[in-house]
Amino acid sequence: MSKVMINENEVDIVIGALNPDLTSFMEEWRPVFSRFHLIIVKDPDLKEELKIPEGFNVHVYTKADIDKIAGSTSTSLLFSGYSCRYFGYLVSKRKFIVSIDDDCVPAKDDMGNLIDAVSQHVQNLETPATPFFFNTLYDPYRKGADFVRGYPFSLRSGVTCALSCGLWLNLADYDAPTQALKPTERNSRYVDAVLTVPVKAMMPVSGINIGFNRELVGPALLPALKLEQEGKVRWETVEDLWCGMCVKVVSDHMGIGVKTGLPYVWRNERGDAVASLKKEWEGVKLMEDIVPFFQSLRFSEAAVTAEECVIELAAAVKESLGPSNPVFERAAEAMVQWVKLWKVVKT
Amino acid sequence: MSKVMINENEVDIVIGALNPDLTSFMEEWRPVFSRFHLIIVKDPDLKEELKIPEGFNVHVYTKADIDKIAGSTSTSLLFSGYSCRYFGYLVSKRKFIVSIDDDCVPAKDDMGNLIDAVSQHVQNLETPATPFFFNTLYDPYRKGADFVRGYPFSLRSGVTCALSCGLWLNLADYDAPTQALKPTERNSRYVDAVLTVPVKAMMPVSGINIGFNRELVGPALLPALKLEQEGKVRWETVEDLWCGMCVKVVSDHMGIGVKTGLPYVWRNERGDAVASLKKEWEGVKLMEDIVPFFQSLRFSEAAVTAEECVIELAAAVKESLGPSNPVFERAAEAMVQWVKLWKVVKT
Repeated sequence: MSKVMINENEVDIVIGALNPDLTSFMEEWRPVFSRFHLIIVKDPDLKEELKIPEGFNVHVYTKADIDKIAGSTSTSLLFSGYSCRYFGYLVSKRKFIVSIDDDCVPAKDDMGNLIDAVSQHVQNLETPATPFFFNTLYDPYRKGADFVRGYPFSLRSGVTCALSCGLWLNLADYDAPTQALKPTERNSRYVDAVLTVPVKAMMPVSGINIGFNRELVGPALLPALKLEQEGKVRWETVEDLWCGMCVKVVSDHMGIGVKTGLPYVWRNERGDAVASLKKEWEGVKLMEDIVPFFQSLRFSEAAVTAEECVIELAAAVKESLGPSNPVFERAAEAMVQWVKLWKVVKT
Repeated sequence: MSKVMINENEVDIVIGALNPDLTSFMEEWRPVFSRFHLIIVKDPDLKEELKIPEGFNVHVYTKADIDKIAGSTSTSLLFSGYSCRYFGYLVSKRKFIVSIDDDCVPAKDDMGNLIDAVSQHVQNLETPATPFFFNTLYDPYRKGADFVRGYPFSLRSGVTCALSCGLWLNLADYDAPTQALKPTERNSRYVDAVLTVPVKAMMPVSGINIGFNRELVGPALLPALKLEQEGKVRWETVEDLWCGMCVKVVSDHMGIGVKTGLPYVWRNERGDAVASLKKEWEGVKLMEDIVPFFQSLRFSEAAVTAEECVIELAAAVKESLGPSNPVFERAAEAMVQWVKLWKVVKT
C-alpha cells in the first residue's frame, strides 16, 4: 500500500472503558495514541473512578453525559457495557473513528516491529475498496501489489472504503463454546494482508478492533441487539455482530466497501469461557435467524444515506424478525431511536 | 489446517509443456513430484523433442494422441499453447488434478522451507470450503484457527471444495500493461493464508498454479476462449480467465466452494511485456463484457452436474455474448464440443 499521509485532525480514537484502571492500556498504546484525539466513554455500569495517565489529548464521557444527551432512561440504556463506545461514535465530529477494546495492546509484526493499528486502519479507509470483483493478490493498492491479470480495468479505481476490520493475535475472537473447547489455543499466525470482503458476502464483524468512515456510515454503527443476560466479556455479547451485519448491508447498498485483515492487536485474556457458556447460547442461536435475514435483505432505491438505510432496516427487522423473538423488536426500536439521536446531535 | 493424509493414487499432476527442455523444471520439482503420477502434454505447436529427466512416473501425450482422441482438426485446435494442459484433464482418471506452469519452480516459505504445492492444493481440496459466510480468520479448518464468534454453527461444516487457486512469488500474474508499467516489480510478500471466495463473488482465476476436484467439476475446466493473436506467454492469453469464470459460476450453482491463497510457486521470467502490449488489449477489452455476463448468469434448477451447467452456459454465451464478437461464438461452440469429448472419454 502506498503510505498514506494521515491528518490527525480527521481521526478520533474511541475507547469504551469497561475497567476503571486504564493505566497499563494507555501506556502500552502511548507511542500510537499520543498523536491523536481520544474519546473515552466510561461504561455507565462502572462505579469506580477512571484512572487515565497524563499526556494524552483525551475527552472523557460518563453516565452524566450520556443521560444528558440520550435523555430518557430507555435510550441511555443502549450505552451500557461494550455498547458505551457507541456514545463516542455519536459525539465525535471527525471523519474517521478507530475503536479498540481496552483489553488489547499493540501487537508486533513478524519483524518484531510495533504495529501502529490506527495508521493502518486509516490507510485502509483512505485507499479504495474493491467489492465488485475479487483480487487474488489481496489489496491492490498496497506497495508491491497490483491487480492481477484479468481484473477489469473499469473496476480498478475501486470505491470508498467504509469499514476496516482488524484482527487479533494471542486470544482470537472466538465464541465461548469454541474457546471452552480449546482453552489453550492462541492465535500466533500473522497474515500480512488486507482484503475487501465482496459485495453481498456477509461476515461476523467483531467490534474489538475496527475503524470506519463516520461521515459516511456512522449512523449504521449502532447499539441495538442486547441479550437478556449480556455480560462484560465479548463472548457474552452480540451487539457488534449485529452492528457489523447492519453496516455491511448498508455499505453494499451504498456501493462502498468493507475491508478485513491488518491491523492486528494483541488481545489479552479476560473472562472464563466455561462460565460464559450458558449465557452464550442465546446469542449463538440468534445468529441462525440473523444471517439469513441479512442475506436476503434488499433496500429500496429511495434509501440513499446511511440514516435512511437504517430506518428501512429497522422496519424490516421489526416485521421479519420481531415476531420470532422480542429481542429483535427491541433492536428495531433501538435503531430508530439511534437515528433520531444521531440527527439531534449532528444538527 | 489439520494435516491431511494424501493418497497419491488420487492425484494427477498435469503439466503443459510449452518448452521442449523440462530438465531443470523437473529437477527443481523432484522432491515434490516424485511421489505422484504425472501427465505431461506437449504443446502440439512444439516441434522439438521433449527432454524429461528419468525417475518420474510420467505419461507423455503429444499431438498424435490429441488427434486420435479429439478427432477433427477443429476440435484438436482447442489444445494448442497453454491449453494443451486441458487434454491432460480430459484423459486423467483421478479425483484431483494439480496443474503448474512449466516456468514455475517450488517457492520457499518465510522460514526458508520448500513449499510442497501439491500437498497444499490437495489439503485445500480435501478440507471443506465456506462460501456462504466469510470467516475473518481465513481457513477455519487450519491448525490453530477456527470460526470466529458470530459464525453460524449451521454453516460450520462447510461444503466440498471444487477448486484451489495458488499464488506466485517473484513474477506475479499481472497483465502486460501492468507488467510493462512496473518492469522491476517482483512479488516478495508471502501471505500465509487460504480463504474461500464467497458465493457470487467473481475473481480472475489464473491457470498458473491450480488444483481441482476433477470428478466434481472437471467438465467445467475447459479450453474455450482463444484470442486471435494468442501467444505463448500468459499475458497473451485469457483461456484460464474464461475457464475460471466458468468453474466459479458452476461451483456457485452446485453449492460447492473455491479457495485461493496458498500454495505459492516461484514464477520465473518469460516473455517481453512491452512486446505483448499490442496483443493483450484484445483480452483486456473482452473482460469488460465477460465479467458482467458471468455476474448476472443464472442456471436452471435442471442443471445439476458440471456437464449440464456447461451446456447451459454455452447456450447463454452464444445468445448473450455471441452477437458482440465472434470470439465468443467460437467459445460457445468449443464448450459444447468439450462436453461431448468429455463424455466420450469418460464412457
